[in-house]
Amino acid sequence: MTGIDTGDTAWMLVSTALVMLMTPGLAFFYGGLVRRKNVLSIMMQCFMIIGVISIQWVLFGYSLAFGPDHGGIIGGLSWAGLHGVGLDPNPDYAATIPHQLFMFFQLMFAVITPALIIGAFAERMKFSAFLIFSFLWATIVYDPMAHWVWGVGGMLRELGALDFAGGTVVHINAGMAALAAALVVGKRKGYPDDMSPPHNLPFAILGAALLWFGWFGFNAGSALSSGGLSVSAFIATHMAAATAAVAWAAMDWIFSKRPTALGMISGAVAGLVAITPASGYVTPLAAIAIGALAGVICYTSVVFLKRKLGYDDSLDAFGVHGIGGMTGALLTGLWATTVINPAGFDGLFHGNPKQLLFQFIAVVGSAAYSFVLSFGLLKLVDKVVGLRVKSDHENIGLDLTQHSESAYTVVG
Amino acid sequence: MTGIDTGDTAWMLVSTALVMLMTPGLAFFYGGLVRRKNVLSIMMQCFMIIGVISIQWVLFGYSLAFGPDHGGIIGGLSWAGLHGVGLDPNPDYAATIPHQLFMFFQLMFAVITPALIIGAFAERMKFSAFLIFSFLWATIVYDPMAHWVWGVGGMLRELGALDFAGGTVVHINAGMAALAAALVVGKRKGYPDDMSPPHNLPFAILGAALLWFGWFGFNAGSALSSGGLSVSAFIATHMAAATAAVAWAAMDWIFSKRPTALGMISGAVAGLVAITPASGYVTPLAAIAIGALAGVICYTSVVFLKRKLGYDDSLDAFGVHGIGGMTGALLTGLWATTVINPAGFDGLFHGNPKQLLFQFIAVVGSAAYSFVLSFGLLKLVDKVVGLRVKSDHENIGLDLTQHSESAYTVVG
Amino acid sequence: MTGIDTGDTAWMLVSTALVMLMTPGLAFFYGGLVRRKNVLSIMMQCFMIIGVISIQWVLFGYSLAFGPDHGGIIGGLSWAGLHGVGLDPNPDYAATIPHQLFMFFQLMFAVITPALIIGAFAERMKFSAFLIFSFLWATIVYDPMAHWVWGVGGMLRELGALDFAGGTVVHINAGMAALAAALVVGKRKGYPDDMSPPHNLPFAILGAALLWFGWFGFNAGSALSSGGLSVSAFIATHMAAATAAVAWAAMDWIFSKRPTALGMISGAVAGLVAITPASGYVTPLAAIAIGALAGVICYTSVVFLKRKLGYDDSLDAFGVHGIGGMTGALLTGLWATTVINPAGFDGLFHGNPKQLLFQFIAVVGSAAYSFVLSFGLLKLVDKVVGLRVKSDHENIGLDLTQHSESAYTVVG
Repeated sequence: MTGIDTGDTAWMLVSTALVMLMTPGLAFFYGGLVRRKNVLSIMMQCFMIIGVISIQWVLFGYSLAFGPDHGGIIGGLSWAGLHGVGLDPNPDYAATIPHQLFMFFQLMFAVITPALIIGAFAERMKFSAFLIFSFLWATIVYDPMAHWVWGVGGMLRELGALDFAGGTVVHINAGMAALAAALVVGKRKGYPDDMSPPHNLPFAILGAALLWFGWFGFNAGSALSSGGLSVSAFIATHMAAATAAVAWAAMDWIFSKRPTALGMISGAVAGLVAITPASGYVTPLAAIAIGALAGVICYTSVVFLKRKLGYDDSLDAFGVHGIGGMTGALLTGLWATTVINPAGFDGLFHGNPKQLLFQFIAVVGSAAYSFVLSFGLLKLVDKVVGLRVKSDHENIGLDLTQHSESAYTVVG
Repeated sequence: MTGIDTGDTAWMLVSTALVMLMTPGLAFFYGGLVRRKNVLSIMMQCFMIIGVISIQWVLFGYSLAFGPDHGGIIGGLSWAGLHGVGLDPNPDYAATIPHQLFMFFQLMFAVITPALIIGAFAERMKFSAFLIFSFLWATIVYDPMAHWVWGVGGMLRELGALDFAGGTVVHINAGMAALAAALVVGKRKGYPDDMSPPHNLPFAILGAALLWFGWFGFNAGSALSSGGLSVSAFIATHMAAATAAVAWAAMDWIFSKRPTALGMISGAVAGLVAITPASGYVTPLAAIAIGALAGVICYTSVVFLKRKLGYDDSLDAFGVHGIGGMTGALLTGLWATTVINPAGFDGLFHGNPKQLLFQFIAVVGSAAYSFVLSFGLLKLVDKVVGLRVKSDHENIGLDLTQHSESAYTVVG
Repeated sequence: MTGIDTGDTAWMLVSTALVMLMTPGLAFFYGGLVRRKNVLSIMMQCFMIIGVISIQWVLFGYSLAFGPDHGGIIGGLSWAGLHGVGLDPNPDYAATIPHQLFMFFQLMFAVITPALIIGAFAERMKFSAFLIFSFLWATIVYDPMAHWVWGVGGMLRELGALDFAGGTVVHINAGMAALAAALVVGKRKGYPDDMSPPHNLPFAILGAALLWFGWFGFNAGSALSSGGLSVSAFIATHMAAATAAVAWAAMDWIFSKRPTALGMISGAVAGLVAITPASGYVTPLAAIAIGALAGVICYTSVVFLKRKLGYDDSLDAFGVHGIGGMTGALLTGLWATTVINPAGFDGLFHGNPKQLLFQFIAVVGSAAYSFVLSFGLLKLVDKVVGLRVKSDHENIGLDLTQHSESAYTVVG
C-alpha cells in the first residue's frame, strides 16, 4: 500500500488500543465512586456504549463526521458502511497510515465521549433510556460537532479554532450534556445530605491510572504520526496531569485540612482534560501552567460552585470535563505556539490575541449547541420511555433492579 | 541486522506485550467469577502457567512447534534451547522482524492456551495435578497442533485451512480440552443448585477489558507487520467483540428479562474468540456479522446446552472457547476474502465453497485430536497423582488448602 | 526533523507509557499488601511522586542527571527547564528519537525509583515527611547516581560497569534507601507478631501484572530503538520474571509446605529486578539462570535474613530491590556477552573476569552512597518535621488520619 509508514502505523495502532482502554478505565473511575449497589450499572453502561457506538460509527457515524462536507455542517452518507474507506491512506486526514486506521482511532473518541456523560446521571437512570439517549446523542450531537471541528470543510476548522485532541468535541461537549442531564434527571434521593462516600476508592484510582495511560494515545495519537509532534503532545499530557493532581491535592490540603486520594485523581483527570485541546501546540512549561490552572479552577467548580448551585452532577462530569474543557480551550489561545507546531497558530502570549477570540467562539458555540440539544434530547427520551428508575428501585440499587446482579458476594 | 523494519518490530514488540497481559487478564476474568475462597487458586494457576510454559517454550516447545518439519506432524528438536533462533529475521515466518521476536510472540500464545482450560476445572483441581497436566498438555497437544496449522510444512497449513490467529490451535484446542476436563474431573460439590454467584464481578469486568485490549495484539499482531493487514485485523477484532457483547446482552434481555454485566462480558469474549481465525481475512461488516452470530450461538450453548447436558464447565471454557472457536473457524469459510488478504483464500460468499470444507476438516480434526488426547492425559494424571482435591478441602476452598492464603482480610 | 526514525520513536513512546504505568502498578502491588486502613496512603504516595518528581525532572532533575558533565559527578543546570532539550535527536544519548523523548523516558525512571522506597516505611510515615524526603532524595541521591551511570562523562559509565536499565541507579539505590528507612523509621506497632496478612492479594497480583507488563518498556525500551537489542532485552526480561516466579514458589513449597500467590508474585518482581542491569547483555538461557538465582536469593533474604535481623522492611523493598539489584548487577558480570550487545562487554563466563570486578565496584559504590545519604536525609527530615505519625494515628490508620478517607464502604 503506497505511502504507508510502518512506524506511524505502529504508533497509531497502539494509540487506538490505548484510547479503547480508556472507556474501561472510566468504568472503574466512575464505578469506584458510586455506591456498591450501582457499580455494575456504571460498568455495564460504559461497555454497552463501546458496543453500540462502535457499530453506529462503522455503519454511518464516521460518514456523518468525516465524510465529504455539506455546507460546513455535516458529512454525508456516502461513506456509510465504510464505503470507500479502505486501507490506503486518505491524505486529507492522515497521509501515512491506512484510512481505516484513522477512522478507527476516531471511533474510540466517539465511544468515550457519551460514556463521560454517565457521571452526571449515575445511580438513577433506566438502562433502556440510557441506551436510547446515548445512541441519539452520538448521532445528533457528537457526529456533527466532530465534523465542524475536525472534518474537512467543517466550520470551526475553517474558522481557525485550535483543538488538538478534542477539548470542544469531547470534553466541552460531554460536559455540557452532563450538566443538562444533571438538571433534567434531577438529584439522587438523599442528595446531598445522605450520600455514602465512594464504595471502592482503589477502583477509582485504578480507573484514573488507566485513563492517564490511555490518554497518551488520545493526545499523542492525535499527531497521527510518530515523531516530534507526538512526543511533544505526550509530554504536555503527562505534565498537565501531574501538575493538576498536585494542585488539586494542595487545594484540598489548604481548604479541607487534608490532601485526599479522591482529590488527587480528580485533579489528574482535570489536567488531562484541560491539556487535550492544547497538547499539540504548547511547550512542557506551558503544560505545567495549564495543569496548575486546571487543578485550581476545576477544584473550585466542583467543591464550591456545585455546592452553591445545588445540582447533582454525581461524579462531576460537568465540573471536570465541561469546566476543564473550557479552561483548556481558552488557555490554548494563550499558550499555543507555532514553534511547537507549525501547522497551528500562535496564541496571545506569542503575539496573536485574535486566537483567543477564536477559541472563545469555539467554546461558546460548542457549549451552547451541546447544552441545548442534549437538554431537548433528554426531555424527549423522558417523555417517550422515562429517564428515571422507580423510587424503590433507586433505593434497592440499579445492579439488582436493572441487571439482576450484585457486584460482590460477602461469603462463599 | 539486515531486513529488519523498525516499525514492524515496534508493533510486534507491543503485540507480544499485549498478549502477555491477556493471561493476567484471564486471571481476573476467571478469578472474579469463582467464589471468594478460590480466587487465589485461579490467579496462581494462570501465573504459574506463564512461568512454566515460558521455560518449556524456550527449552523445546518452540522447536517442536515451529522447528524444521518432520512429515507434516511435528517440528524436531534442532531448535531446542533456541539453537539457531537468533536476532536476524527468519523469512519463512516473518521477514522484517527478528526471528526471536516471532518466537516470543508465539510463546505468549503457548502460554495463554493452557490457561484457558482452567475455567473448566476451577475450584476443585489439585495444584500439583494442574501443573503436571498443563506441562504435558502444552507439549503433547499444543505444540503439535501449532505445528500443523502454522509450522512450515504443517499438514493443516498445507491443506489450505485458514486460521489467522488461532481459532483451531488456541480456542478449539483449549475448548475441547476444557470439555474433557469438565467430564473427567466431574462437577463441583453442590453444582448446579447450591452455587454462589460470582464473588467479584468488577474483577471479571476488569479481566474482560484486559483481554479485549490484549486481543489487539493477539489478532492484529498476527499480521506480523505494521500496515494494512494489521489494521484490518484490529478493526475486525474490535467490531466482533463489540457486536457479540451487544448480542449476548440482548439475548439475556429477551430470555432472562434483564441484560447482565456477566452476559455482556461473556459475549465480548465469545466475539473475540470467534473472530480470531477470521480476523485477517474479513471486512468490518463481516466482522459485525460474525460477532452477532458468535454472541447468539455461544449464549445458546452456555445457557441452554450446558444446562441440558449437565456437565460442569465451571467458567464456560468450552462454551465460549470451544463453541466460539468452531463458530469462527467455520464462518471464516463463509466470509474470507482475498480483497482483504491476498495471501488468504475466498470463502463461500466470495465464490469458493471448497474453503468451507477445508475449515470443517480443520475444525473436526483439531477438535477430535484435542478431545481425545486431553481426555487420556487427564485420566493418566488422575491415576498417577489424583486430579481432585479432598472433599473437605473443596469445602474450605483451594486458597487455604492449596496455598495457605486468603485473598481478602475483612478487618484491619 | 532530521534523523528521526518513526519505528524507533513509536517503540520509545510506548515504552515511556509502559514505564509510567509501573508506578500505578506499584501502588496496587504495595497497596494490596498493607492493611485496609492504609491502602489509600500507599496509593496516594505513589501518585504524588508521579506529580512532584515529574515537575522536578523537567525543571532541573534532568539537567542534573544528563546535562553537560561536571567532573564525572553531576550534570549542571544548563538544561534546566529543558533549555536546549528539543525535538531533534541528541546523538550522545539516542540518535534516532527526539531528545525530549529520551528525557521523558528517563523521567519515568526518576519517578518510580523513589516510589519503590515506600515499601519500607509503609503504614507509619507522615505524608508531609514523605513528600519532603522524596523530593530531596530524588535531587540529592537519584539525580547524581543517574549521572554517574548513564550521563555522558559520568564516572561509573567511564569505569565500564554495565547497567543496562537501572540495576544500580534504580534498584540498588531504592533498595538501600529502603533499608535506611526501615532502620530510621522503626518497626510498625505490633511487628512482627500482631501483623495482619495482606488485605487484598488480588490487588497485589494486579499490581505485579502491571509491573511485569510495564517492565517490557523499562528494559526493552532501554535499547532506545526498535530492533534486535530491544527484542533481546524483552525476552531476557520475561524469562527472568517467569523463572524467578517459579523458583520462589518452589522455595515456598519446599520450606513452607505450600506454594503461595504472594511468593509467586514476589518472585516475579525479584526476577524483573535482577534482570534489569543484565537485560541488554545476556542470552535467553542466561536470563533463565539469573531468574532462578534471583528467586532463590531474594527468597532467602526476605524469609530468613529479615526474620533473623528483625528490621521491618514492611513490603520488602530492600529484600527484593536491594538484594535483587545487587544479585543482578553481579550476575551481569558473569553472563554478559558481546554476542548479544557489541556495545557492551563480556563477563566472566565469556572470558573477561575483570568485568565482575567493575560490577562489584559499582554495586558497593552505589549501595554505600545511597545508604549513607538516605540515612542522613531521613534523620534530617525526622528532626525538622518528624517522620512518623502519632501512635494512635498508626492504630487508626493513615487513610483516615492523613487523608480523611476510607478505601471501602461496607454497606450502601
